[in-house]
Amino acid sequence: MSEKQSLSEAFDQAPYPLGGHSKRNVHVLQEALAGLDGNLNSDLYGTGAVIDDFQNKMAAYLGKESAVFFPSGTMAQQIALRIWCDRQKLKRVAYHPLCHLEIHEEDGLKELHQIEVVLLADKNSLIRLKDVVNLNADIACLLLELPQREIGGQLPDYAELEAISAYCREKGIKLHLDGARLFEILPYYQKTAAEICQLFDSVYVSLYKGIGGIAGAILAGDEAFTKESKVWKRRHGGDLISLYPYIVSADYYFERRLHRFPQYYEEAKELAHFYNECTAVATRPAVPVSNMFHVHVQVSKDQLTAILPAIYEATGIGFTHYVKEIDESSCYFEVSIGDRYAHAPKDQIKKAFQLLDEELGKIKG
Amino acid sequence: MSEKQSLSEAFDQAPYPLGGHSKRNVHVLQEALAGLDGNLNSDLYGTGAVIDDFQNKMAAYLGKESAVFFPSGTMAQQIALRIWCDRQKLKRVAYHPLCHLEIHEEDGLKELHQIEVVLLADKNSLIRLKDVVNLNADIACLLLELPQREIGGQLPDYAELEAISAYCREKGIKLHLDGARLFEILPYYQKTAAEICQLFDSVYVSLYKGIGGIAGAILAGDEAFTKESKVWKRRHGGDLISLYPYIVSADYYFERRLHRFPQYYEEAKELAHFYNECTAVATRPAVPVSNMFHVHVQVSKDQLTAILPAIYEATGIGFTHYVKEIDESSCYFEVSIGDRYAHAPKDQIKKAFQLLDEELGKIKG
Repeated sequence: MSEKQSLSEAFDQAPYPLGGHSKRNVHVLQEALAGLDGNLNSDLYGTGAVIDDFQNKMAAYLGKESAVFFPSGTMAQQIALRIWCDRQKLKRVAYHPLCHLEIHEEDGLKELHQIEVVLLADKNSLIRLKDVVNLNADIACLLLELPQREIGGQLPDYAELEAISAYCREKGIKLHLDGARLFEILPYYQKTAAEICQLFDSVYVSLYKGIGGIAGAILAGDEAFTKESKVWKRRHGGDLISLYPYIVSADYYFERRLHRFPQYYEEAKELAHFYNECTAVATRPAVPVSNMFHVHVQVSKDQLTAILPAIYEATGIGFTHYVKEIDESSCYFEVSIGDRYAHAPKDQIKKAFQLLDEELGKIKG
Repeated sequence: MSEKQSLSEAFDQAPYPLGGHSKRNVHVLQEALAGLDGNLNSDLYGTGAVIDDFQNKMAAYLGKESAVFFPSGTMAQQIALRIWCDRQKLKRVAYHPLCHLEIHEEDGLKELHQIEVVLLADKNSLIRLKDVVNLNADIACLLLELPQREIGGQLPDYAELEAISAYCREKGIKLHLDGARLFEILPYYQKTAAEICQLFDSVYVSLYKGIGGIAGAILAGDEAFTKESKVWKRRHGGDLISLYPYIVSADYYFERRLHRFPQYYEEAKELAHFYNECTAVATRPAVPVSNMFHVHVQVSKDQLTAILPAIYEATGIGFTHYVKEIDESSCYFEVSIGDRYAHAPKDQIKKAFQLLDEELGKIKG
């Protein structure tokens, strides 16, 4: 516990953390609000210019008829699946075993919506066309997460995505995109958001991950779908009198960062390369397909946690604030590139990796 | 439609609106953030000093073991009732026919939690002890709303409240307080929040009504209850990565306004008196017991809507931005006193009521 704290503390003190945009503090909101006219009216239970304008902007960006702002992706996605289940009169959906709904939401989908789930594919693999074709239960909706976060942010080929979409349309299965990191995958696919979204019936996008807003999500689809989603948003307790703190900050950071995703992607590939040159280290995927990847290290969590703080102190570089155990002799952590990577001096990055390689070399003998 | 807009526009332009604290605009948040250190860390999925400190403060203020910040009262209250139903293994609760859960939440309690509801009392009356005693169905929980907003903000005598609480404890019925306007009733009861809350097993308080925050709510009770409520908060999609925009503003306006509720209460009685002196006008209740009341007018909605804008323009006083039809010959609107009432010049208020009385006199002939 004290070692864990000291890794996190050392990371907090490092002037050049390699992931993320900035610290998650009140300044992030203060900056977004600084240029705003104080007379701008709050939204009011989902109505008003501040929410309408942003929803319209996101609908256009995603190439969908309509979009709704939600306080969270958890709420937006359960609701999307519920609507498709009701529409199909079939309370069964399929998604990946490491889907956010399966592992991070306390079974909300099952407890609140009584929706049954079929887990598709091995937990260490992507969902492939064959998994969908071989399904031996009827489902109302298939949820695909792009990129698949819990396995390092992997992506299927675009052609396979198109094939899955075509198959689902043929079979009358609704296809929902968990696009928590949709902005992040556009440079790899070399597609617009609208091009990818047209493969799906409904789409969720997070506004605080790549974009770096405070919180919040967008759910987009056709008019009938989004209209129904607003009823469920109220039922869930998400139709707040005022959501503008999240909306204005999402809009501010969307405008500020959307053009930078190609840069984050290139930097992620560069950083993964540095990691992969170290003893006992391998990134997953080996070559990132977005701004994120996982770093797997063949030493114990305690061993890695013990050597990192001194490297941060010697170089000013912060690799990670946490390490997760895989088993007794291996561990991993996640990296997501944002604004900060570009501010870290290259020579210090190289020095930090040299030290990391040396220290891991000592452990591995 | 154009008349409705012109009433609302006239109200917006009136320099002295008599209800509320201020316009609901971005300035409200900017003001709350202005004095904050930008280095203050965000809460993180319900953890961190910014949320812990405020929850602890509210638990102490309400005299409960523990408190949880929720994005909305809709979410907090459904969850409170769900927990008590699960605890009692009985999916039935009772509340007033005009309870928020019954008329403003798209049946979330029934659709998401499959909880059956017994409506207690006539919709124009308060729930009395006899209504609870005469219940002919078992219930897990009784929800009492203090004050009963949709009938003008009425309250039972404190002795009757104590009797209902004692009866529920005797019968093993959990008692939940919809305290959306709890701060507002303390001056009438001459009790502390903790004294009132100890009559209840669980309590919800709104942070944007009397307090004037941006949005958000507190749910308080014993440790086991609030711990379970956090699981349901995640299921509902309310466990946001960052709730601090609502928390810091709730805290700011709590500190700024808590001592003013006795003043709002006195002003509400004064204002109700002005209304009651006008032709064809009666407030409900006749003498307010909080900062709020309803104004019932024995003319049609169109008639009242037609005469108000000229009064606002002549005096600078704004009575209301809307009027709701009751039937062809009567209508009403709600008044909640906040900071603004004290800023309206008394002579202009009197002039406005003189004009209102004259105009209503012309209609009533």
